[in-house]
Amino acid sequence: MKTAFAIEAGSTTAPLGFRAAAFRAGIKESRTRDDLALLVSDVSAAAAGVFTTNRVQAAPVRYCRRLLVRQTHVRAVLINAGNANACTGPQGDRDAAKMARAASRSLRLPHNEVLVCSTGTIGIPLPMPRIEAAMPALVARLSRDGTAAANAILTTDKVAKTGAVRLTADGKDIVIGGMAKGSGMIAPNMATMLAFITTDAAARPAALRRALRRATQLSFNRITVDGDESTNDTVLLLANGMAGNRPLDERHPDWPRFQAALNALTLDLAKKIVRDGEGATKFVTVRVCGAASPVDAQRAARAVAQSLLVKTSWFGGDPNWGRLMAALGYSGARIAEERIEIRFDGQAAVRRGRALGAATAEELAAVLRRPEFVVEIRLGLGSAACELYTCDCSEEYVRINAEYMT
Amino acid sequence: MKTAFAIEAGSTTAPLGFRAAAFRAGIKESRTRDDLALLVSDVSAAAAGVFTTNRVQAAPVRYCRRLLVRQTHVRAVLINAGNANACTGPQGDRDAAKMARAASRSLRLPHNEVLVCSTGTIGIPLPMPRIEAAMPALVARLSRDGTAAANAILTTDKVAKTGAVRLTADGKDIVIGGMAKGSGMIAPNMATMLAFITTDAAARPAALRRALRRATQLSFNRITVDGDESTNDTVLLLANGMAGNRPLDERHPDWPRFQAALNALTLDLAKKIVRDGEGATKFVTVRVCGAASPVDAQRAARAVAQSLLVKTSWFGGDPNWGRLMAALGYSGARIAEERIEIRFDGQAAVRRGRALGAATAEELAAVLRRPEFVVEIRLGLGSAACELYTCDCSEEYVRINAEYMT
Repeated sequence: MKTAFAIEAGSTTAPLGFRAAAFRAGIKESRTRDDLALLVSDVSAAAAGVFTTNRVQAAPVRYCRRLLVRQTHVRAVLINAGNANACTGPQGDRDAAKMARAASRSLRLPHNEVLVCSTGTIGIPLPMPRIEAAMPALVARLSRDGTAAANAILTTDKVAKTGAVRLTADGKDIVIGGMAKGSGMIAPNMATMLAFITTDAAARPAALRRALRRATQLSFNRITVDGDESTNDTVLLLANGMAGNRPLDERHPDWPRFQAALNALTLDLAKKIVRDGEGATKFVTVRVCGAASPVDAQRAARAVAQSLLVKTSWFGGDPNWGRLMAALGYSGARIAEERIEIRFDGQAAVRRGRALGAATAEELAAVLRRPEFVVEIRLGLGSAACELYTCDCSEEYVRINAEYMT
Repeated sequence: MKTAFAIEAGSTTAPLGFRAAAFRAGIKESRTRDDLALLVSDVSAAAAGVFTTNRVQAAPVRYCRRLLVRQTHVRAVLINAGNANACTGPQGDRDAAKMARAASRSLRLPHNEVLVCSTGTIGIPLPMPRIEAAMPALVARLSRDGTAAANAILTTDKVAKTGAVRLTADGKDIVIGGMAKGSGMIAPNMATMLAFITTDAAARPAALRRALRRATQLSFNRITVDGDESTNDTVLLLANGMAGNRPLDERHPDWPRFQAALNALTLDLAKKIVRDGEGATKFVTVRVCGAASPVDAQRAARAVAQSLLVKTSWFGGDPNWGRLMAALGYSGARIAEERIEIRFDGQAAVRRGRALGAATAEELAAVLRRPEFVVEIRLGLGSAACELYTCDCSEEYVRINAEYMT
């Protein structure tokens, strides 16, 4: 079932019953931008989370994972930017719990109904007094406008990433909204990325978890900026049921529509992360088809999308499909060189493993000048396919990451 | 057996009976530099080769592989820079054979005693008339000076990479010499790198192959610049026996010394490749110890040495060991966060998985300012270790690779 869902303006506060706030607590070194965000549901919301597969996990990731094992419903999420609370040892775990308690006290909620997320520099203890001192003002700012919160969770991102989709279930209007942050360290299996999805749909927690896992697989796990995977990646989904539909699960007739809408929103947010990748000047879709197996398709697409040589050639506007062939060769995917076909926005560059060379050089260079293009790779060995979204690698990427902490 | 071998000045012509030459055939687009090199042994030489594991293999790689299956001895190697003769289909195979024939005709040798190597842009057919026309002049230039040849095989390299070592076997003086080119696309399992090692030792071909494989494993497979692996990587070793020793193999009492000398020379050439990595400003040794298994040690070291975020932080002079922890986390190696210790040139940065933070920030920043340092990572889980050599990633890397082909 593939329904086209239009992505509308809106954020985590687009669905009924969600409020958000932001505050400048002074966690970021610059101390000129908001760095604390709060997201609250007016009523108890079924919660699902997907977390980084990195074996080094930030304290807030450990906190949320543990909490969501016992807890199916929550009321709020407290997020800070500027400090990842990762590699901070037992102190980090205590601080994550303290963040949850500080928020729950100010919101008068049980502390196990608050989730916490952090993003930023690794290895520096959180400035807890600043966070605790900020709570009353943060709570006082809660409103139906999610804009400030969507900005407060950013680090090196240039723009806020938000969106919303609408659907109906049981004849009720349902809204799904979301905000995300990304930028560097973006790789399949997530990245230094946080995404917060809210909906006023009613849904069964277990089904919600499966829906989020599936949507993440098709969106946040399909993007790569620099191949690094972070310690803090988190996607949270809160469903508060205020739309009044019968709780959604796989047996509900409107379930496929809900899943498709969720997929559309998460894919939109994921693509926005790539578009705002550190130093990115081009958005590139890498589409591999004809692979012998799904694993082969994924390996081939990832090798190309993560090759630094390929990404710098895109930045240079150079149709250097030779680097692309080399990446396919070391990807681990089964390939037969003489069967490979490569097209840039439909323009053939390689046929039966051979360069078309000067014959198409000008047409290819024209495609490479576009801010967005599709690289299609046909392996000619089977029917498996994989599509990844990535960007080029510019000098600015290096500049940003050479200077991030100093 | 760990004997220290001093690396001396010298190249492929340092051993007895080898001559080399270079010529500007006009293969490189610039046409201002030599791009054709010839290496000849005065007598038949036992030959061994190690080649790229990339599934997309350049025509000269296929040619050499095939030839060395049947042929244990050769007399010459013809190398061109500026064109990789990769992804050039059947025409590429014909051109590789033509190169060998052109050289053998001019040298009056059987054509199956000539090996060929290419490096440069992928997917453009070789300008065969230029190469064939250059042969008489190239042969006329053969001399006991290997300098010009070592320069002619370079692409984006800034400096020629050469060296020689001396040892004795059966009381005879033996010399091993070599030249290499590297620069970008340098990764474990080799890179766009070519290396040519010559020796006047007598050695049995099968033992020579094992020695070269072992030396490559400990040198060219231990370096990484950008994680890309090329279609053309080749290491060739020619042993012409003019030193007059009894043929070396594993049962010869001087075999360990020969292997150690070969290891020392290949490691030296490999490190020179890293030092001249595209845009590199720092030489970094990544040493992982205490891993649960050799595979874990290698995974951990590679993840760190290939992380773009880690490498850009080194360029920025930033002891961002947080990115290093993140890389360890996604490396696939078994780790226990709370056991990890990290030191930069002996200066502790992480103890029991926790940042030492401000306490050592200044000392660490001082280490990061050095042009060369060692990152030591102790995993505390076992006794396996792995050492890799890499460099930082600068804006210049992006600049070079964005502009390489255009």
